[in-house]
Amino acid sequence: MTTKHDASILAPYHEQTDGLRNVGNQMWTRGWSLGTSSNYSVVVNDDPKHLLVTASGMDKGHLKNSDFVIVDISGHPISPDQPKSSAETLLHCVAVEMGAGAVLHTHSPWATILSEHFAAQGGIEIAGFEMLKGLQGITTHESRIWLPIFNNTQNIPELAAEVRDYVADSKNPPLYGYLIRRHGMYTWGKSLSDATRHIEVLEFLLECIGRQISIR
Amino acid sequence: MTTKHDASILAPYHEQTDGLRNVGNQMWTRGWSLGTSSNYSVVVNDDPKHLLVTASGMDKGHLKNSDFVIVDISGHPISPDQPKSSAETLLHCVAVEMGAGAVLHTHSPWATILSEHFAAQGGIEIAGFEMLKGLQGITTHESRIWLPIFNNTQNIPELAAEVRDYVADSKNPPLYGYLIRRHGMYTWGKSLSDATRHIEVLEFLLECIGRQISIR
Amino acid sequence: MTTKHDASILAPYHEQTDGLRNVGNQMWTRGWSLGTSSNYSVVVNDDPKHLLVTASGMDKGHLKNSDFVIVDISGHPISPDQPKSSAETLLHCVAVEMGAGAVLHTHSPWATILSEHFAAQGGIEIAGFEMLKGLQGITTHESRIWLPIFNNTQNIPELAAEVRDYVADSKNPPLYGYLIRRHGMYTWGKSLSDATRHIEVLEFLLECIGRQISIR
Amino acid sequence: MTTKHDASILAPYHEQTDGLRNVGNQMWTRGWSLGTSSNYSVVVNDDPKHLLVTASGMDKGHLKNSDFVIVDISGHPISPDQPKSSAETLLHCVAVEMGAGAVLHTHSPWATILSEHFAAQGGIEIAGFEMLKGLQGITTHESRIWLPIFNNTQNIPELAAEVRDYVADSKNPPLYGYLIRRHGMYTWGKSLSDATRHIEVLEFLLECIGRQISIR
Repeated sequence: MTTKHDASILAPYHEQTDGLRNVGNQMWTRGWSLGTSSNYSVVVNDDPKHLLVTASGMDKGHLKNSDFVIVDISGHPISPDQPKSSAETLLHCVAVEMGAGAVLHTHSPWATILSEHFAAQGGIEIAGFEMLKGLQGITTHESRIWLPIFNNTQNIPELAAEVRDYVADSKNPPLYGYLIRRHGMYTWGKSLSDATRHIEVLEFLLECIGRQISIR
Repeated sequence: MTTKHDASILAPYHEQTDGLRNVGNQMWTRGWSLGTSSNYSVVVNDDPKHLLVTASGMDKGHLKNSDFVIVDISGHPISPDQPKSSAETLLHCVAVEMGAGAVLHTHSPWATILSEHFAAQGGIEIAGFEMLKGLQGITTHESRIWLPIFNNTQNIPELAAEVRDYVADSKNPPLYGYLIRRHGMYTWGKSLSDATRHIEVLEFLLECIGRQISIR
Repeated sequence: MTTKHDASILAPYHEQTDGLRNVGNQMWTRGWSLGTSSNYSVVVNDDPKHLLVTASGMDKGHLKNSDFVIVDISGHPISPDQPKSSAETLLHCVAVEMGAGAVLHTHSPWATILSEHFAAQGGIEIAGFEMLKGLQGITTHESRIWLPIFNNTQNIPELAAEVRDYVADSKNPPLYGYLIRRHGMYTWGKSLSDATRHIEVLEFLLECIGRQISIR
Repeated sequence: MTTKHDASILAPYHEQTDGLRNVGNQMWTRGWSLGTSSNYSVVVNDDPKHLLVTASGMDKGHLKNSDFVIVDISGHPISPDQPKSSAETLLHCVAVEMGAGAVLHTHSPWATILSEHFAAQGGIEIAGFEMLKGLQGITTHESRIWLPIFNNTQNIPELAAEVRDYVADSKNPPLYGYLIRRHGMYTWGKSLSDATRHIEVLEFLLECIGRQISIR
């Protein structure tokens, strides 16, 4: 499938594709990116913004250096001879608009289950955990974050607009990530290692919450 | 045990046996194929249909290139000097009749538990999950599939007939896989990577359902 | 610690120590042999019976070829310059008396939890699972085994006598393994691969039972 | 970040940094040290006491030989050109005062959940498990330990004082480790392998307790 594509466009980004392949293998091993689900991106050019993003439908446990696409800030491929990127690329672009340098979207069991369990209240409050300090800018466990839950839809531009509106609304607290109902989680960071840290922190916290309510 | 067999019949299929060995190691690592349970196959000839299938009783975490048998569409070995194939080979044949190019049968804890938990209702409805889009031909989370549960039996021809009847009955929805009660799951795909994606998708969904009902 | 020992006694058994090291790493990786718990053995001489058994207190995830002792059927070292074997060596000997060629003792969370949960009834009945066919001599899921639970004690000769008495009593069903309360599991097989299959089968079944009662 | 530091100070301690890197990868793989959480140390000089401790904010699954700091018994770096050590370094020093040669702090889901679940009673009693014998000096399962739970705080000197006071109070039982509420666990040992054994033992016991109360 990738043979018909022009791989030369990815040649300068071997380090970045290796980084995302490595992250993909970690997420797949932990069961957070099974069944070719999930997609990951890093910013590779700042002005104009270009994102290197996983091509659609790839096995995240065994990504190849050619399983990537370069898109602009609207999610369009910067050149035609590339594999198709995920329909959700636009959600990566929204995170980059907000300042992200890397964006990770995963489909873990706990994110999926809790996005349904707490759907009626529109999000999950996570408070009082030391692990929160793994999120950029949080310096004490005496913090509370709100992980909003958006309804799932196949209309990604609509969902992208919803996320933008949420962020634009000054009444909302800072956004560290969000869940899509019965779908998965998005988080991001300045660098790929920041984004990876954030996904590990949030997945850990969701597992704690999920197991806690399994006890009661 | 394999020394008395004629290994030359498998020589042209090194790539396919490597593929199944790799899948076996993944499934065993995740705990879906413990205790020499499970069996896997790929179609290696189309006319007449020949299947390369795991020999009976092998450790799925450490399959050797010689741990395979080639059988025809009736499940009979195409030549006598081969190891014994599993009694369940016929269920692989039924999936191939339905168009499969690769068939995976696993024994995970959740498949086993839920096949009992939902036995009275004859199957499990799985609806509204984004992960469903990992199944061939499903393009929206607003889908619902039915994973039928068949009673377990050691009479495999009888079970094969039951599966054929289910598929032949036009009142039944499309079949993406099925459970055998207190036994395990069958799924398949056009290629081995499709079948692997399907097993990951279905196992993920069963884990979500199992953990969800552990919360209540 | 091993430097003061005469390693030459183990030299002929490199294949067997490698086999047990490999099993140890698998069990440790799955969390069934943490904290230097567990011990494993294989028969290396038939007449008189000699067992190669893990030395006491070793990290089961990273066994070295020197981390083993050779003992006779009474559990006594066959030569003085060897590391200390576990106090529980006698339980390995009892299994060998019963015909085992390899004995595996593990400490998994589910074995530990269920040995307490079902202590009052003296054992766990496991019936109707296809996975039971992974136990030597069982050919149908329509089988039921009884996994007796013995009270834990530091008096190993007493416990060994209890196991012997259980086996000698013709009213008791065949013994495939047993639990020691809040301690762990013992199982065995003709060969190391048989014993490994048995541990995987029994651990799988205990996980199914444990998760099943977590649902209710 | 590490480039501006003087790496020569760590040169003699390659074996120790390799040991901690290896432990870090194990803890991260098991999900006990995600999101750059946790910190680990070993004593590298006895008089005066010097500790080699993980630098602040490092990915514990992929520690480099330069990701460490050498501090004195007050937690201050012994030379200026070193990366910043964790604020919690002082808690490592307290364990070393008590005789530890290696200290491990982890953030597992079960330690986090149970530190909240049992917060009102101030600790967790763990009794009657064979696995307790993996703790230094315990020789029978008929033992009971008390794992105290301290409230979480960002005031580490205050928490260090609390731990010291707990140990100084002769009415308290021997201390094998402790939990910090919604934060994680500390344990230690004479050597790194002792401390690793202790963390595996305590994490195992917490998992048993957590799953046990999920059954009820």
